[in-house]
Amino acid sequence: MQRNILVIGIGAGNPEHMTVEAIKALNRADVVFIPEKGAEKEELAALRRGICDRFIERAGVHRVSFAVPQRDASGGYRSGVEDWHEAIAGIYEALIRDELNEARTGAFLVWGDPSLYDSTLRILERVEARGALRLAVEVIPGITSIQALAASHRVVLNDIGKPVIITTGRRLGEDFAGEGTTVVMLDGGTAFAGHDPDTHIWWGAYLGTPDEIVIAGRLADVGEEIARTKQAARARKGWIMDTYLLKKQER
Amino acid sequence: MQRNILVIGIGAGNPEHMTVEAIKALNRADVVFIPEKGAEKEELAALRRGICDRFIERAGVHRVSFAVPQRDASGGYRSGVEDWHEAIAGIYEALIRDELNEARTGAFLVWGDPSLYDSTLRILERVEARGALRLAVEVIPGITSIQALAASHRVVLNDIGKPVIITTGRRLGEDFAGEGTTVVMLDGGTAFAGHDPDTHIWWGAYLGTPDEIVIAGRLADVGEEIARTKQAARARKGWIMDTYLLKKQER
Repeated sequence: MQRNILVIGIGAGNPEHMTVEAIKALNRADVVFIPEKGAEKEELAALRRGICDRFIERAGVHRVSFAVPQRDASGGYRSGVEDWHEAIAGIYEALIRDELNEARTGAFLVWGDPSLYDSTLRILERVEARGALRLAVEVIPGITSIQALAASHRVVLNDIGKPVIITTGRRLGEDFAGEGTTVVMLDGGTAFAGHDPDTHIWWGAYLGTPDEIVIAGRLADVGEEIARTKQAARARKGWIMDTYLLKKQER
Repeated sequence: MQRNILVIGIGAGNPEHMTVEAIKALNRADVVFIPEKGAEKEELAALRRGICDRFIERAGVHRVSFAVPQRDASGGYRSGVEDWHEAIAGIYEALIRDELNEARTGAFLVWGDPSLYDSTLRILERVEARGALRLAVEVIPGITSIQALAASHRVVLNDIGKPVIITTGRRLGEDFAGEGTTVVMLDGGTAFAGHDPDTHIWWGAYLGTPDEIVIAGRLADVGEEIARTKQAARARKGWIMDTYLLKKQER
């Protein structure tokens, strides 16, 4: 028996990032799986519920919530992620086994795009590798926070004939490109600090939502403002999701 | 007098990549500017017309076609692009001056996302720099061929904790990452040829359209098949647009 799974990119926070394809996919699902990550991201959960409420037109679509375990940050980064994914794979396996059959399709909703810094596809691969279930997975792309950032700043990511590197705050030190553009996702701190003060930064938080904040300028001019803004926003809302891009200035 | 311009990402070829935001933007435009690039891409022009026909619900939206000059490929790459953009800026300036006023909004439709390997935003900056017109530009993000490629292959771009580099066929030699993933856009040939045969490639052409072709595997196993497929498809249709991603295998 094969289970049909839709992995649907739902955009960066603006419900109107939803594509026609994503809306149709949502209406093909019999069960929508909803992760519960804890109170600090209740706003994100509300945004996702809003997307379901607004776009699901078919009656009888069943919403099934599940608890997402915390990642153990005590060991190494990579092994911590491996164990965490394995634990979530066990949860997914049980959900899929209990809620779906050949006639009932399930959907996972992913912020941004399932292909970028999201673990859903990797975890579904693990579920298949465990051998108990056979899955047919279909992926629906979605607008990422990188695209929402570039749109808000009306900036083009790539300079003419230059590359774009997408990396994490953790790796910025080694990946910051000598030329071209560097996009940073998942920076819990301010990894941009300490780089060449002439570097230009385009920063954004809560992109696509009513709380969106964007700041752009030379690191020397706006670096501290971004750090302060980020700290204040996190204190006020209890969580933050931000993204930025860096370009070294040509001399 | 300020002219309002919408730059709308319309996705990679599948009309259902259109977001709710893009559909609404299309219906806010009074004039849609349609480039005519010559017969070889008539299929793309037909796809774009199809998107307008399907999604524009407001009566009286005016479609204005304009000829796009050919790029002079005789000089250096960068200077050729500069001159070409300046020539197009002159055309945009005339279109905006003649067709728009404070009460009439114009829209440019961009394949993929306006922030990635597209010149529309750069050319509108040039129009402003010429000094004759003041523009208020709004950007609507769209699904890129990279996202369509990843979705069709159900692959995640980034390996855990690794970067993603987006580059062109022309630059692949210098940008091919030692680790992580390399995405190649705008490869007129087969720049992947000659790289480590254990490299894994995920390739796609005409992504999102009914003619979509996807091939994946080790370069040693599928490199020549991709080269043949690409040549045959270009001969059959008169044009090709393809994208691929490469990951070196860990040893």
